[in-house]
Amino acid sequence: MADINSKFDIGVTTGPIRGSRKVQIGAKSGSGVRVAMREIDLEGGEPSVRVYDTSGPYTDPDATIDIRAGLEQKRREWIMARGDVEEYTAREVKPEDNGQLGPDRSGGVPAFPNVAKKVLRAKPGMNVSQMHYARQGIITPEMEYVAERENLGREQVRRELDGNSWGAEIPEYVTPEFVRDEIARGRAIIPNNINHPETEPMAIGRNFLVKINANIGNSAVASDVASEVDKMVWSIRWGADTVMDLSTGRNIHDTREWIIRNSPVPIGTVPIYQALEKVGGIAEDLTWEIFRDTLIEQAEQGVDYFTIHAGVRLPYVPMTAKRVTGIVSRGGSIMAKWCLAHHKESFLYERFDEITEIMKAYDIAYSLGDGLRPGSIADANDEAQFAELYTLGELTKRAWEQDVQVMIEGPGHVPMHKIKENMDKQLEACGEAPFYTLGPLVTDIAPGYDHITSGIGAAQIGWYGTAMLCYVTPKEHLGLPDRDDVKVGVVTYKLAAHAADLAKGHPAAKVRDDALSKARFDFRWRDQFNLSLDPDTAEQYHDQTLPAEGAKTAHFCSMCGPKFCSMKITQEVREFAAKQNSDSYLASENIKRETSAEEAEEARAGMEKMSEVYREKGEQLYLPEDEVDGVGPAQ
Amino acid sequence: MADINSKFDIGVTTGPIRGSRKVQIGAKSGSGVRVAMREIDLEGGEPSVRVYDTSGPYTDPDATIDIRAGLEQKRREWIMARGDVEEYTAREVKPEDNGQLGPDRSGGVPAFPNVAKKVLRAKPGMNVSQMHYARQGIITPEMEYVAERENLGREQVRRELDGNSWGAEIPEYVTPEFVRDEIARGRAIIPNNINHPETEPMAIGRNFLVKINANIGNSAVASDVASEVDKMVWSIRWGADTVMDLSTGRNIHDTREWIIRNSPVPIGTVPIYQALEKVGGIAEDLTWEIFRDTLIEQAEQGVDYFTIHAGVRLPYVPMTAKRVTGIVSRGGSIMAKWCLAHHKESFLYERFDEITEIMKAYDIAYSLGDGLRPGSIADANDEAQFAELYTLGELTKRAWEQDVQVMIEGPGHVPMHKIKENMDKQLEACGEAPFYTLGPLVTDIAPGYDHITSGIGAAQIGWYGTAMLCYVTPKEHLGLPDRDDVKVGVVTYKLAAHAADLAKGHPAAKVRDDALSKARFDFRWRDQFNLSLDPDTAEQYHDQTLPAEGAKTAHFCSMCGPKFCSMKITQEVREFAAKQNSDSYLASENIKRETSAEEAEEARAGMEKMSEVYREKGEQLYLPEDEVDGVGPAQ
Repeated sequence: MADINSKFDIGVTTGPIRGSRKVQIGAKSGSGVRVAMREIDLEGGEPSVRVYDTSGPYTDPDATIDIRAGLEQKRREWIMARGDVEEYTAREVKPEDNGQLGPDRSGGVPAFPNVAKKVLRAKPGMNVSQMHYARQGIITPEMEYVAERENLGREQVRRELDGNSWGAEIPEYVTPEFVRDEIARGRAIIPNNINHPETEPMAIGRNFLVKINANIGNSAVASDVASEVDKMVWSIRWGADTVMDLSTGRNIHDTREWIIRNSPVPIGTVPIYQALEKVGGIAEDLTWEIFRDTLIEQAEQGVDYFTIHAGVRLPYVPMTAKRVTGIVSRGGSIMAKWCLAHHKESFLYERFDEITEIMKAYDIAYSLGDGLRPGSIADANDEAQFAELYTLGELTKRAWEQDVQVMIEGPGHVPMHKIKENMDKQLEACGEAPFYTLGPLVTDIAPGYDHITSGIGAAQIGWYGTAMLCYVTPKEHLGLPDRDDVKVGVVTYKLAAHAADLAKGHPAAKVRDDALSKARFDFRWRDQFNLSLDPDTAEQYHDQTLPAEGAKTAHFCSMCGPKFCSMKITQEVREFAAKQNSDSYLASENIKRETSAEEAEEARAGMEKMSEVYREKGEQLYLPEDEVDGVGPAQ
Repeated sequence: MADINSKFDIGVTTGPIRGSRKVQIGAKSGSGVRVAMREIDLEGGEPSVRVYDTSGPYTDPDATIDIRAGLEQKRREWIMARGDVEEYTAREVKPEDNGQLGPDRSGGVPAFPNVAKKVLRAKPGMNVSQMHYARQGIITPEMEYVAERENLGREQVRRELDGNSWGAEIPEYVTPEFVRDEIARGRAIIPNNINHPETEPMAIGRNFLVKINANIGNSAVASDVASEVDKMVWSIRWGADTVMDLSTGRNIHDTREWIIRNSPVPIGTVPIYQALEKVGGIAEDLTWEIFRDTLIEQAEQGVDYFTIHAGVRLPYVPMTAKRVTGIVSRGGSIMAKWCLAHHKESFLYERFDEITEIMKAYDIAYSLGDGLRPGSIADANDEAQFAELYTLGELTKRAWEQDVQVMIEGPGHVPMHKIKENMDKQLEACGEAPFYTLGPLVTDIAPGYDHITSGIGAAQIGWYGTAMLCYVTPKEHLGLPDRDDVKVGVVTYKLAAHAADLAKGHPAAKVRDDALSKARFDFRWRDQFNLSLDPDTAEQYHDQTLPAEGAKTAHFCSMCGPKFCSMKITQEVREFAAKQNSDSYLASENIKRETSAEEAEEARAGMEKMSEVYREKGEQLYLPEDEVDGVGPAQ
């Protein structure tokens, strides 16, 4: 499983996910765009199940992984073909880009060896954002890729309209034109910096599958570069759709370079963290010039979306004074401190249009940060939070004026009865720009289990319309997540996102549930494991009590033993009670009606006849359909 | 921590939960009823927090625990004082009561050494159910106990009406009369068999705190008696309000005796499991006589509630034929098999009033089983499920005619958008009898994580009105839970139940959240751990990255390190932005309004003044309130 790449210090997990194989599906448009998916083959003649795959080449046995070289830049030709970018010499990396102490060359990893000297940006006067193309009516290969990726097996599935999408407009089938239209309207984004051509395009929007983000990154007191790269690969293996590098410690520039060059998923950052490092950690010393320089630095590296806390305005800071937990966003507290210290409006707010100019030159998406999100149940849905949200709505429209893609970050800690208000207000304030929430946690009292308290809130807000759920790990509030925490966080959020897709009625979402449940009923244990979000854990748990290989085909498990297995009993009965019998005793509309004495007598006679048949047929409770034919209804 | 009771084979965990002490609170009525609670003392002059305590004497350092003797029978004097019970010689235990092979005396544990020869039942013509007393207008000590227990610190708390209870009638303060009325109306139950006088009374009802149940019990292929007793004590330590012994293997009678005699919480069972053992596992051979004998056997032992699958009627069985997962309830599949084999209506349904006669003689509550609950997303809310539910409603009314307490079991596997329909239909069909649901699981695709998929559904249905949530462990669908799984399941459900209480607006629920969040903001790490549902895990996770004792008082953790801690930054700022400043820049209603040039100039002047003050005051961002007074508004 854990293949350490022997040539380098940085080891990552490669190889297929158990029971799955990588497939490349050509887009219907015939444009040559090929979309990576994962196919799970089943036993017993059951059709294979195709699932969304975020894991990139790491799970492809045919791919050569070289962490020092980075991934293949498949998207580069699409970018160059548009003819609207220019190559230029990248800004030189300064020692302080790696923190106050500079890069840690002796103790850490080396700089990424394959850094591009030349980087791309829009030609003067050009705008290379997907939103800009979409608004020109252009369907990009990125949009085609997304359309095919979102459909999965949707074409093969009978339309399922079972769900409540709370007003979303989920299509029966996703066409490239649908994707283009969603991007143009700002209802979805495809975050992909032109300097991150290693990405497999993905969309974040209310009418697409719910996505999840995994946060990684070091801090001043923990973590190192190699383990962050490993966590990135590990998190996408289990389903992270995007990854945020939230590093705040040393080697911040180098860490990001290693991550981006090896990431097939969009990478997000919070540039203010690095900017703060550059001014020695003194929030008051932050300037627009230093921040702008940091944006350029990260834009050239290929960061796909920036969290910008431009909604933390000076007048909102005092609104947080009476809160139980004040300001819990790191970026928010930094900006609040800056605003109060200078008694000036935030430079992020004041320079917003200038930031947007940079974003459009690289196609970086905004993730407008909720610096004033509530950090406790007590502070949920308060004045400060919603004041900021409406400002984010105002900024969304300003970004859209320059055709720059935007999503909006959301809370935080919110009790269940206040979750929907967050979604409703966000849709109203931000013109349906995608919502990207952290949890929310539905109670404060379970540190150590906050992946679960937040998973509860995430599933709900995902159902209500949140487009991407930012994971929370078991270590939330307690420490930096390790590899195991990352996996638990990702799987928890993957199941929450899938639960949301099911409840919204995504046409193909239920295919996997049905296939797994059918495998369960048929005692195809290996299929059940392979269809799971985490096949390794499912099999391991099964084997803890019944490790023998034969138990993988047994018609029971350790929960009930052979005699009490309800599924086994039901299987014995299955065929016998075919449809004609269903009508015989009691039509469904009569269920609640009392049975008259005469009817009861009639039914009894029928039942006795059926009982005889049962004994004649060797006490097999569900017979094959052809054997049932002769039995006929009881009356 | 794990104190093995050295005299016996059965070891259980005793001693206080970290950071808590046991308190006994006298009921307000002055009747002498004393209610056990857990008190968490805090640092920094913060008031202690009182929490609901299910752990019984095991966490009381003053209690002597002797597993061979069983717990003190505190409730016996209340029972005897009512003068409506008689002692009689218990039914003799037969070898087959312990399974087909009889008791396993050599390999297992001995029979419980302290079995009562005489047991209690109602005198002829009497009815000893709490519902019967309630309907006579009698407030029992059990009702007084429950009232005090439910209130917790409610009296001390300013009324909080923040919540949406979906039509529940949660009182500001729980009086014994309120409890009596809820029991009389059938909206709540107090399950406590007169032969289980070791219980600390608790209520299950929509207007009380949401409760959780933990399932334990062996199967034919796994588990043993000692570990089941240990799991019972372990599950109540972490918050299980009731425990179901679902044993199906050998030693079934003895296991139950050990569990009941040592349980301070109500114990539920599914008697059909044992009855099936008595007929060699052949469902068709079950008879009313054998089932009745089993009910008496378990009634005399002290089982507090029986799951009876009396709603699995013959005509409903064919409705399950087209399901993806058929019948997944063990009891449901047994009864379905019996019904089809005999082609007769279920004897549980036909003999329902006779069963009720037994229930009222011991005060056993019904848990009307949902034998046709859906076992997959595909089968949720189908005809079979709701046909059974309406029958359960009919049976509820029949039980109530004899003043017997009832709760109703519910699903299962249900996607989020179909959860509320379950609650709405249950309230309608079953006259507001308490709902007791398993999960529901909101997706089928995450075996190994089904405590989470079900916790998501449980929190929601708890919010909508479910009175008790039956836990699901990580081993669901895969194997029998071990001790660690039991704890994870209990804590997951405790947080789901608490999230539901918060969302419903239970007056005192938020006290613990607020105390924990305040501790978090104040960097009182030990208080944060102690206020957690699982203090051991919270501290362990913290210590994995910052193990030093000094880190327990540090104003940061490994997540962000000292420089980036938002809470630390906010604390620095806190006092400075006192209320008067809040008004100075922008009234909240003007937030979305554009600022005119003149206003902007005026504001800028004010800000510059404030900036000077900030520098004068030593760049401390939040000043004590008295120092702020001189500063005044900026304009």
